[in-house]
Amino acid sequence: MATVKLLQDEELDPRAAAVFADIRTTRGTNDVNAFWRALANHPETLETLWSELKRTMAPGALDPLTKELLYVAVSVANSCAYCVHSHTAAARAKGMTDAQHQELLQVIAMAQRTNGLVTALGVPVDPAFDRNEG
Amino acid sequence: MATVKLLQDEELDPRAAAVFADIRTTRGTNDVNAFWRALANHPETLETLWSELKRTMAPGALDPLTKELLYVAVSVANSCAYCVHSHTAAARAKGMTDAQHQELLQVIAMAQRTNGLVTALGVPVDPAFDRNEG
Amino acid sequence: MATVKLLQDEELDPRAAAVFADIRTTRGTNDVNAFWRALANHPETLETLWSELKRTMAPGALDPLTKELLYVAVSVANSCAYCVHSHTAAARAKGMTDAQHQELLQVIAMAQRTNGLVTALGVPVDPAFDRNEG
Amino acid sequence: MATVKLLQDEELDPRAAAVFADIRTTRGTNDVNAFWRALANHPETLETLWSELKRTMAPGALDPLTKELLYVAVSVANSCAYCVHSHTAAARAKGMTDAQHQELLQVIAMAQRTNGLVTALGVPVDPAFDRNEG
Amino acid sequence: MATVKLLQDEELDPRAAAVFADIRTTRGTNDVNAFWRALANHPETLETLWSELKRTMAPGALDPLTKELLYVAVSVANSCAYCVHSHTAAARAKGMTDAQHQELLQVIAMAQRTNGLVTALGVPVDPAFDRNEG
Amino acid sequence: MATVKLLQDEELDPRAAAVFADIRTTRGTNDVNAFWRALANHPETLETLWSELKRTMAPGALDPLTKELLYVAVSVANSCAYCVHSHTAAARAKGMTDAQHQELLQVIAMAQRTNGLVTALGVPVDPAFDRNEG
Repeated sequence: MATVKLLQDEELDPRAAAVFADIRTTRGTNDVNAFWRALANHPETLETLWSELKRTMAPGALDPLTKELLYVAVSVANSCAYCVHSHTAAARAKGMTDAQHQELLQVIAMAQRTNGLVTALGVPVDPAFDRNEG
Repeated sequence: MATVKLLQDEELDPRAAAVFADIRTTRGTNDVNAFWRALANHPETLETLWSELKRTMAPGALDPLTKELLYVAVSVANSCAYCVHSHTAAARAKGMTDAQHQELLQVIAMAQRTNGLVTALGVPVDPAFDRNEG
Repeated sequence: MATVKLLQDEELDPRAAAVFADIRTTRGTNDVNAFWRALANHPETLETLWSELKRTMAPGALDPLTKELLYVAVSVANSCAYCVHSHTAAARAKGMTDAQHQELLQVIAMAQRTNGLVTALGVPVDPAFDRNEG
Repeated sequence: MATVKLLQDEELDPRAAAVFADIRTTRGTNDVNAFWRALANHPETLETLWSELKRTMAPGALDPLTKELLYVAVSVANSCAYCVHSHTAAARAKGMTDAQHQELLQVIAMAQRTNGLVTALGVPVDPAFDRNEG
Repeated sequence: MATVKLLQDEELDPRAAAVFADIRTTRGTNDVNAFWRALANHPETLETLWSELKRTMAPGALDPLTKELLYVAVSVANSCAYCVHSHTAAARAKGMTDAQHQELLQVIAMAQRTNGLVTALGVPVDPAFDRNEG
Repeated sequence: MATVKLLQDEELDPRAAAVFADIRTTRGTNDVNAFWRALANHPETLETLWSELKRTMAPGALDPLTKELLYVAVSVANSCAYCVHSHTAAARAKGMTDAQHQELLQVIAMAQRTNGLVTALGVPVDPAFDRNEG
């Protein structure tokens, strides 16, 4: 199911084809996953998103694996099944071990649990957590 | 605002007081933040949660700072303002730099954005992402 | 803060005033909480919602206290702070004990936690859970 | 998969059958989608919901296409895959062009992204946004 | 689809096998649903979660059926399809009638609706709902 | 409260100051709201976001007011109070009438309600909604 057509390689316009070529080079695989095939209906959005995603996920003050784990965490909390599957696979490709996956799940589950308790208790933010003081 | 009373030190029952003492020792500060003061109304829940939280956030296959960043990411996606404030402060206490905070925000924002696009496009999960094959 | 004015009694149009009178009679108190004062800007929405809410929360196959607990549970998962506060207060007014509140929090926290795990694991629905078979 | 049986035409009770007839007339098609077949187990809920939905989505201060776009936006943010599919189809049926769909996705993605940033930054509401002043 | 392998009985390590045996005894059925088969990859998480879940869902100040209804409510608001299916089935197994299911849906739908209105209106919490006063 | 300092004009670095100048020119007001003051801690993120936001919200296949209404809808479903306040104000500034606001709230509330019902019923997507067929 999809709300747009998932474009095959031979259906791409030239701008989308160029992005697909870069995805293949960057990832070192011929596969281009369904998200990009859906976005290819909108070449401008595809171009912008791929270039920003590459920049965002590149090594920096945080390493690429940490960034993938963060991506999984957000995707779980947003109930985005596709995103969970694709970024869990990406994290494994970047070296996530089974032990790290287990701890990732434990932290996510703990955060979900205390998020619920905090909201149910209506806890006010401690003034000590405010950075907005001279 | 809170849906329960935030208990002061002199209002704690002995089980809750013991947890508060351990929180102070573990964290090396006399402050006990409002979440624990709210939970102190239910000493059994307080005990269980504090001991599991300590275990979950301890160094393991993932380091403690990475775990705090994951906690922030889940809390943002769940719109839990208290949780975002308290775990951002905890991440800073564990060494998060401004540059790391900036990249954390960028990854969260990117994940929010693509989560929305994936859901809006109704992208089906690629079979390659399934681990459930012999 | 509010995106509309919270109307005072003397600012109500006659349809809104009639709803406020019924809220006061039904609840046996002179207080009308801020939600209704905000909705009073749209008398038609106010009328429809109040009459459906009364019908929905009335005793039926589920008792009124159970319905309030369900309301709190949904509101927590939706991160609606106002809704958590108002329906926790309503549950107390309908007899929720501290022990029941503690168990309510425990079930919500457990559900949040396993919801996160299920999503992170990408668990497929067991065919046994499907009711859609002849 | 469904948690209730999706009723076929010959299984409907008379109240549900009357609603189905009105759905067919209103939409000018013989198809009745799965949501209504699931709700048909609860004829009272089915009747109320269909009549309110018709009224809500009718032309008014906002035109019907704008209302469908809003429906898609809420459904995306709520991660409701069925709702995204059905209301995207409805928007197309009401005239949504590919260019409008692309901009819809861009606005949703931008809102998801800044929602995440605002929550992560803990931004306080500017007093200028409050309407609740005399 | 799943991000981990769903383990079959013959693939379990001894700790996971012991939990599966207890699940079968407790529930009086030979079936072990997919959630536990996914968690079995992490025996420690499986043990902890099953033992806490049993304790949380046991009769107490709230009865087991009420707890299942609350579980469904949280799962709906979190858009967790698996959780909705499994806990709706569990509620039926614990005696939920069709009339109770209908009212459960009505309360959930009403809470979703007023949660949205409250957030859209930006309603401030009434001071009367605060429990945090001496 | 905020997790970063809200920068005042005299604290801005030159790149952030240039963005603030453009915000003032574009909006025709001297006020710069708190979101931008928080983002100003990360000038690169500020620059990118402001320029993409301007492009996204500009007139196109959808008019600017429709885009603001969509922004409010997503923000409500994400429980982002700041976002709801700021974009409701922006919608008013772009001509949203009280009648349009009322209908916006009605559509959002209806979508929240049916999203919940669809998820609780576990409704499968109708094949007719799939665009991914040759």
